[in-house]
Amino acid sequence: MILTVTLNAALDATWSVDSLRPRTSHRVDDAQERAGGKGINVARVLGGLGHDPVATGLVGGDTGRRILDELNSARLRSEFVEVAGESRRTLAVVSRDDGDATVFNGRGPAVSAAEWQLFHRRYAALAAAARVVVLSGSAPPGLPADAYAQLVRTAAAAGALTVLDTSGPDLLRALGARPDVVKPNAEEIAAATGQADPARAAAALRSLGARTVVASAGADGLHAVTPEGTWRAVPPERLAGNPTGAGDACVAAIAAGLDAGSAWPDILRTAVALSAAAVPCPVAGEVDTTVFRRLLPRVVVEAVPPAPAR
Amino acid sequence: MILTVTLNAALDATWSVDSLRPRTSHRVDDAQERAGGKGINVARVLGGLGHDPVATGLVGGDTGRRILDELNSARLRSEFVEVAGESRRTLAVVSRDDGDATVFNGRGPAVSAAEWQLFHRRYAALAAAARVVVLSGSAPPGLPADAYAQLVRTAAAAGALTVLDTSGPDLLRALGARPDVVKPNAEEIAAATGQADPARAAAALRSLGARTVVASAGADGLHAVTPEGTWRAVPPERLAGNPTGAGDACVAAIAAGLDAGSAWPDILRTAVALSAAAVPCPVAGEVDTTVFRRLLPRVVVEAVPPAPAR
Repeated sequence: MILTVTLNAALDATWSVDSLRPRTSHRVDDAQERAGGKGINVARVLGGLGHDPVATGLVGGDTGRRILDELNSARLRSEFVEVAGESRRTLAVVSRDDGDATVFNGRGPAVSAAEWQLFHRRYAALAAAARVVVLSGSAPPGLPADAYAQLVRTAAAAGALTVLDTSGPDLLRALGARPDVVKPNAEEIAAATGQADPARAAAALRSLGARTVVASAGADGLHAVTPEGTWRAVPPERLAGNPTGAGDACVAAIAAGLDAGSAWPDILRTAVALSAAAVPCPVAGEVDTTVFRRLLPRVVVEAVPPAPAR
Repeated sequence: MILTVTLNAALDATWSVDSLRPRTSHRVDDAQERAGGKGINVARVLGGLGHDPVATGLVGGDTGRRILDELNSARLRSEFVEVAGESRRTLAVVSRDDGDATVFNGRGPAVSAAEWQLFHRRYAALAAAARVVVLSGSAPPGLPADAYAQLVRTAAAAGALTVLDTSGPDLLRALGARPDVVKPNAEEIAAATGQADPARAAAALRSLGARTVVASAGADGLHAVTPEGTWRAVPPERLAGNPTGAGDACVAAIAAGLDAGSAWPDILRTAVALSAAAVPCPVAGEVDTTVFRRLLPRVVVEAVPPAPAR
């Protein structure tokens, strides 16, 4: 079983307007809401691939109840812990004139020490039944600074593999717990390591404790540094659309590959095709399976010599 | 008693961002939600003036329940009818760099014929106990084209005075029912009549059935054409801030004046001062009572000869 963790689950709204013009009023013609947060998006993609993942994390208030209702409607197994604060909302305002999205992200509820302990106990029980644990996204206010490190250690002690997709201090503080895979994008890896070169940056993250680093660079594909070797995987074509969900699709492919015990070149090939297949979809958590099947055999995966750690 | 009607009640959110930059992501630091819609804002202002208004209208879904909870917290008497659809949300994104707001307005739930009839019956009973009925804002989808005309006639038949603050086709279609007061702003009156000159535009609305027209022109004050005479009322100074709630404060002053049987020059003086006192407040439905008391004696009200109907 694959367990996905979303510590800062959200109710994601998408609003359509003719054209976004700052300092004016807009009529919203089409408003949609769904449960979101990176871990939930990963669980959706896994569900679409035929897996039966369990989604856990923290939700709260009326917004949290709507998140749970929506997960239930989407037939995703959820084991969230409810907190007293109100879950955050996110809003993507999509302009019909150019298709571009302007995004607003709430911060999320303050979580108390008792709520964190309650979650950690529930999580430990779930992780004991999981082969792979996916830890995705930002942490809400109030959590211990080493929250992700704690979750990585608990999963490892239970025998599960961990995939961590977060950024900034949350990422750096978790590396000492030795996550099996981290998946920063180009911007996140540069911010975390101060290295613009992905090979050097990946080596830096490994020297801090990550066992495998899969660095994503959008349409330029993936650069993966693993204990078994280093590979670059490149999509065969560029697709137009919404790249928001590509990272979550990539993480879903990594988790599915670890769950199946696949070799890294195969995992990376699937991850590149699945990421690209998310781009034509309007919301994160969806992939275009026709695009996936078309691209999969054409992804180029090549072994590259590892860069030295600095 | 003053009854306010909000056919398309909303949950109004205000989100603070550093600076609104289209096509980028923003961190929302301060999110506030409250019940809104023009009629609810009028009720809030009346409550602040010491009146005990009743707020009615249509709400639905989880968002509707949050609207009712919030009205309850604000100690406003509410007699809303619940519909199956989901009440709309509105969002004001306020940039901290310049204080400007970018506003998004949802359309509101589709209302069925049965729901409209249920509301109309509840409304008729409430109007029978009211001296003044305030009808404010847009109508949600699905209502009869003459919904406001029906409500004006029902109130008049019950012996209540009516104040109508809406725009476009909703305004024009209601005039034949002879509302006692309509309060378009400069833009609305120009759009409805094709007349840029407020005196001529007011005469046009009166020729279509409105008994009194109070045309608001922001910092230029009010131009009122009534059966007792025509007046212009001008604020003594311009205030910086958020003009969103000024129109609702103006309507509240008109309703309170009609309820008290005040003369039009006195009503207009109060309406101008109360509108101006709403501008320094960050959200609609609030007025700065210190500003109101300071401005009230300095508002200039002068009789002007009525313009001929065209």
